[in-house]
Amino acid sequence: MEFDIAIIGGGPAGYTAAERASENGLKTILFEKKEVGGVCLNEGCIPTKTLLYSAKLLDHIKGSAKYGILADNNPGFDLGKIIGRKNKTVKKLVLGVKSRLTGNGVTIVQGEAHISGEESNNILIHCGENNYRVKNLLLCTGSETVIPPIKGFSDIDYWTSREALDIKELPQSLAIIGGGVIGMEFASFFNSMGVKVKVIEMLPEILGNMDKEASAMLRSEYNKKGIEFFLNTKVTEVSPGKITVEKDGQISDIDAEKILVSVGRKAVTNGLGLETLNVELYPKGVKVNEYMQTSHPNVYASGDITGFSMLAHTAYREAEVAIHHILGIEDRMSYNAIPAVVYTNPEVASVGKTEEELIASGQNYRVRKIPMTYSGRYMAENEGGAGLCKLLTDDTDRIIGCHLVGNPASEIIVTAGIAVEKGYTTEEFEKSIFPHPTVGEVIHESLYI
Amino acid sequence: MEFDIAIIGGGPAGYTAAERASENGLKTILFEKKEVGGVCLNEGCIPTKTLLYSAKLLDHIKGSAKYGILADNNPGFDLGKIIGRKNKTVKKLVLGVKSRLTGNGVTIVQGEAHISGEESNNILIHCGENNYRVKNLLLCTGSETVIPPIKGFSDIDYWTSREALDIKELPQSLAIIGGGVIGMEFASFFNSMGVKVKVIEMLPEILGNMDKEASAMLRSEYNKKGIEFFLNTKVTEVSPGKITVEKDGQISDIDAEKILVSVGRKAVTNGLGLETLNVELYPKGVKVNEYMQTSHPNVYASGDITGFSMLAHTAYREAEVAIHHILGIEDRMSYNAIPAVVYTNPEVASVGKTEEELIASGQNYRVRKIPMTYSGRYMAENEGGAGLCKLLTDDTDRIIGCHLVGNPASEIIVTAGIAVEKGYTTEEFEKSIFPHPTVGEVIHESLYI
Repeated sequence: MEFDIAIIGGGPAGYTAAERASENGLKTILFEKKEVGGVCLNEGCIPTKTLLYSAKLLDHIKGSAKYGILADNNPGFDLGKIIGRKNKTVKKLVLGVKSRLTGNGVTIVQGEAHISGEESNNILIHCGENNYRVKNLLLCTGSETVIPPIKGFSDIDYWTSREALDIKELPQSLAIIGGGVIGMEFASFFNSMGVKVKVIEMLPEILGNMDKEASAMLRSEYNKKGIEFFLNTKVTEVSPGKITVEKDGQISDIDAEKILVSVGRKAVTNGLGLETLNVELYPKGVKVNEYMQTSHPNVYASGDITGFSMLAHTAYREAEVAIHHILGIEDRMSYNAIPAVVYTNPEVASVGKTEEELIASGQNYRVRKIPMTYSGRYMAENEGGAGLCKLLTDDTDRIIGCHLVGNPASEIIVTAGIAVEKGYTTEEFEKSIFPHPTVGEVIHESLYI
Repeated sequence: MEFDIAIIGGGPAGYTAAERASENGLKTILFEKKEVGGVCLNEGCIPTKTLLYSAKLLDHIKGSAKYGILADNNPGFDLGKIIGRKNKTVKKLVLGVKSRLTGNGVTIVQGEAHISGEESNNILIHCGENNYRVKNLLLCTGSETVIPPIKGFSDIDYWTSREALDIKELPQSLAIIGGGVIGMEFASFFNSMGVKVKVIEMLPEILGNMDKEASAMLRSEYNKKGIEFFLNTKVTEVSPGKITVEKDGQISDIDAEKILVSVGRKAVTNGLGLETLNVELYPKGVKVNEYMQTSHPNVYASGDITGFSMLAHTAYREAEVAIHHILGIEDRMSYNAIPAVVYTNPEVASVGKTEEELIASGQNYRVRKIPMTYSGRYMAENEGGAGLCKLLTDDTDRIIGCHLVGNPASEIIVTAGIAVEKGYTTEEFEKSIFPHPTVGEVIHESLYI
């Protein structure tokens, strides 16, 4: 069977690419070995947000007296129902993606695709019993959880994010190894559900490369809510119910009924047959140029397989860029304005440069910082918790970064992202009218600081 | 006493103008007869949003079982505490505005200012015992509730939005005359609090000039929640507990313990002494050009006094434009991309052209419409209720309007507003990366429809 393009992997990159390719007249085939939607839809973004919403409701009810509402301040929950609703939501969305693909004329093949070289300008792929000849290939195999090579892991029953999403019962206590975005979202969920949570982070601060002030603020919020943080702390050994750690040369033990590992994800490049096409790899994944083209001119890669941004919305855009290049439409990938969001309560969101990056690169910048309480809407909806809106501008007054702590940071960061992407100066951005009263206005307000 | 600029009225237009003027070196005086913050902060936007948040929490708790949360499904409330928190929030925000003004060096005078003409290029103002000579004058006196000339109103004890915000107890039933934005926000609040609400609207649809499909969708949602709507219905007489209406020539009575009037607002221009400066008026308010300048070159007007947009965020921008013109900075007011929001539950938000306007003007347009359920985040946080995202584009594929139903429409409409304001084509807007998963993504998704 012959196709204009084969896409391996049906996650955010793969399904977006398939839709765009097929819409634009390319005969498109998509291979997916598990479920269309990938990690994001099946065991990542969407399931966590579904669980986190139930947890947020629980938080809301517990805190409702502050708003004059008289509810049971120790509400219960039905874990089975919470997980069941998550599964139902995921199922609906997977069906939605599938039907959009099918509706667009994409051939979906359930199975593990293998590349077996090329022949007269066609790339050869086989999957199950069938062979396929395709003009272009887009690799979207995504990433998998990194299990660190720590003594004891092979002997204990730990969770990764996948297992943590499908629990039957809650542990009394949970140690999360890795205080990055995924770690903190699970910390938030289990904390709301009444589990004693301990977060162990090797670095001096949680949330990886995000703004340090925002990260510290979130940590302080969760500290108040009872989460214990162990920073600058390295896990040296795990055993049932016990994690041995090292900090400043001192060894100690941390107790926890359950362990969740969230130290990072790595690109999936093995077993695909990439070597048959001489596709160049680098330590983190498949190497691409700004058109998402690999070292082989007819092979593209998008999504986590490229090994850096590792976000669904990056994958969408990368997929679009790849398809545009195949179609001959001028377009280039830019990583300047990709928002990052932590769906804790409060949410943290970020786009563009951080102060830490700017200091490291020696670039001049100016900080415009206000608490979220500048927003009347925020005041109306948030008793306690000042929040943060930090806007960074360069010497020409262009907006180059924005960092937020406070709900709904996830939904409002994109306005700053547009400003960063389009290179707006504060003066140009002042003319955009934000509705009043909204929390989003804080970004606009910070222009005047 | 001499000033570079006097501002009459300390609402959104007035306090924004005062801040900008003073920051830019103008010696600034602000007259306010009641409280700084104006209607918006003291008896409009902010108080309603505070009350609506308590109501939303109540709705959340009642609906929490769908999300696996086991709470009392008939939660109570403490009306006194709800109103008290509203007052506290308003007080804090008023203090914040005051301290920003004072910090910026603005002279605030509490009192009713009167214009008494001009003398050697100075405008003369008096307030209380004092006289002031100013080079420029900005009128920001705002608007007041319209009480329609309907028989019986002078004899009954009705509410306007002001009284409805400071109630001591809830009525059993409430008839709201006028189903515009203010009417619907109060309808939403009282409905959540268990009051039997009836909305009487003279026009064939609620929400005035907003998109008719979105308006009908909101009406249908509230119909399900028990609100009774009387469309195409004109009130002819009111008496205690009874409203006489006419529909299609038929007269009938609607019962309600209490009546709330929200048929509109009108500019406040009387009693200021505008005639001493020959400032030109038109039927709705003070006439201005695109620099917010009145017929008198040193007199400007911003906010509701201009009689059209009547939104706080319009006022902010108008104030900024006026001050820019006084300072000689090139800037013009544009009304193309002013978002409008209805803070019901679900929220409705809108920016740019409506289909109705485009049809009336004969302009070609294309509709790109998807349900909010296209967004995984929306699905995760909203059981039931499809919502709506409708994007309108013109012949050159430029985004010219956007209409949303579903939370948090208020916070996400601004991205479409930026697109409308900057004149983005769908292709240009596709490159903006919206974080996943967010509800805001629906706007981005609709570009591909």
